[in-house]
Amino acid sequence: MTLFSDLALSGIAQSLLREGVRPHTLIEARRPTASVLAKAELDPAFLDAEVAFGQPDLDAIRASTRLRWIHLTSAGYTRYDTPVFRELARERSLVVTNSSLVYAQPCAEHVFAFLMAQSRCLPAQIASSTPNGSAEWLHLRAIPRSPRGQHVLILGFGTIARYLLPMLAPFDMRVTALRRNPRGDEGVPTVTPEQLAALLPEVDHVINILPDNADSRGFVDATFLAALRPGAVYYNIGRGTTTDQAALDQVLRSGHLAAAWLDVTDPEPLPAEHPLRSAPNCFITPHTAGGHHGEAEALVRHFLANLERFANGHPLLDVVIGR
Amino acid sequence: MTLFSDLALSGIAQSLLREGVRPHTLIEARRPTASVLAKAELDPAFLDAEVAFGQPDLDAIRASTRLRWIHLTSAGYTRYDTPVFRELARERSLVVTNSSLVYAQPCAEHVFAFLMAQSRCLPAQIASSTPNGSAEWLHLRAIPRSPRGQHVLILGFGTIARYLLPMLAPFDMRVTALRRNPRGDEGVPTVTPEQLAALLPEVDHVINILPDNADSRGFVDATFLAALRPGAVYYNIGRGTTTDQAALDQVLRSGHLAAAWLDVTDPEPLPAEHPLRSAPNCFITPHTAGGHHGEAEALVRHFLANLERFANGHPLLDVVIGR
Repeated sequence: MTLFSDLALSGIAQSLLREGVRPHTLIEARRPTASVLAKAELDPAFLDAEVAFGQPDLDAIRASTRLRWIHLTSAGYTRYDTPVFRELARERSLVVTNSSLVYAQPCAEHVFAFLMAQSRCLPAQIASSTPNGSAEWLHLRAIPRSPRGQHVLILGFGTIARYLLPMLAPFDMRVTALRRNPRGDEGVPTVTPEQLAALLPEVDHVINILPDNADSRGFVDATFLAALRPGAVYYNIGRGTTTDQAALDQVLRSGHLAAAWLDVTDPEPLPAEHPLRSAPNCFITPHTAGGHHGEAEALVRHFLANLERFANGHPLLDVVIGR
Repeated sequence: MTLFSDLALSGIAQSLLREGVRPHTLIEARRPTASVLAKAELDPAFLDAEVAFGQPDLDAIRASTRLRWIHLTSAGYTRYDTPVFRELARERSLVVTNSSLVYAQPCAEHVFAFLMAQSRCLPAQIASSTPNGSAEWLHLRAIPRSPRGQHVLILGFGTIARYLLPMLAPFDMRVTALRRNPRGDEGVPTVTPEQLAALLPEVDHVINILPDNADSRGFVDATFLAALRPGAVYYNIGRGTTTDQAALDQVLRSGHLAAAWLDVTDPEPLPAEHPLRSAPNCFITPHTAGGHHGEAEALVRHFLANLERFANGHPLLDVVIGR
């Protein structure tokens, strides 16, 4: 088989890929993508490949007659998640897999670190050097609230949520997951979007892991946020487009929400003058939740594991489109 | 019985104490202490009490002929942890209990929040608004390291450590506890101070929960810190005196340690010009690890639970000195 990779690699990860794909032929893009979130440029050599590893261009995919499998280097796949592309994939028997399993643990750890840091109010604590016994000190001691027994609502129940649940378990939290089509294998109670309104007033933490698609855009809107329990905390590691940011800014400034922790925004990065940059208790990381030491090697290893499955006709991991 | 309290209380916690002590007589100090860490002033009414709740003065204790039980509002008891006081307690059959059970969960959550925030490098991530794909972004994505499989050394194995262990469990960490006199009930492998040197080069995280006493002062010294694996992280929620702060500053500035997270320092607070205030990746909270919403009520409830035990001659909780 001929494989095409547009992922920028060097050192160990590059050697790992070059050696791991043997005996197949590897074509490396002349201009690899700058990041796992960027779209690749069109490369004529792409047309020779049966397998694409990276973030292949839609026009290149359309032009290819040989392509059978695309392995994305991201967990998100918005670019491909359209009726037009799904129809193309069906016609061509194309399968698309993503790198969910590479990012699930770091993403779960990132949002869990958000939750723990919020629970102990670490940003305010670290910013203070107040003496023991002062009014500020008594306040700082009084604000942390244990996650124990609190209620977490997870929006979007997929691989990340499955990795998150064991981290929450020692705190005996009440966990509810929103899932459009509950399958009964979630291990926690689920609700559908229609059942959400009744639940929101009981929620202490909303963890948004929704992908970006036509259904999810603006899902967390002013009505959603207003319905939450006063003092609730909002976390987003899904996609920025799923949140009405003006509404979020408003509930932070009014004090209705205690805090927001966002790894994703719309756009990224938010401009310096964006209201959320100065909203109280709004903490933003620059879309780094999936990042981790050894990420490139982990991406390559995951691809190679799937390549072996593909070559042997076994079911692929992390299928998002196709069989 | 007559009870003396020097804890400053108001609202619910005050009512809880006043109602909960009945039918005993409660004397409230005319000048209550400003915090659970401060020493109380001498109050003549103290001499009538059989039970003291708070942070009673050593001279007052010595002057009292009626006192039988002291329930401290702190977990630390350095002021009382001396050969002279222990001898006095023995002669007078005085028992001293502390409030460990009130602070164990918040303290464990605080240091665990430190560990999670460090693992995801949250301070650096929150400080950045770099665009996806930039060199800074690639760096920020590459630095977080999962706690999974890493090695934690806990210095001082008591109630806080017992609360911490379940939080670490989902990460399959290797955990070792230092304990002067291992009892075999720790649930994790233990080492004595003599066995420590061989272990330190394998340690990724040192969590210091040592109390302040003659043995612990300066325990974490230059030799200890130099022996740790490069990139190790140091956390202190015990007492500031247990750490050679100049040595800690040195290993942070040399880059030998990746970070330090301190809830306790010597003195508290550290002056603005203290080197650790500007040491790289040194994050300091102002001795707030035990603080939490509802702390005063929790202190009163713990005292009342012990009071019922004391009145009925049952074994007390959190005994630190005496039978």
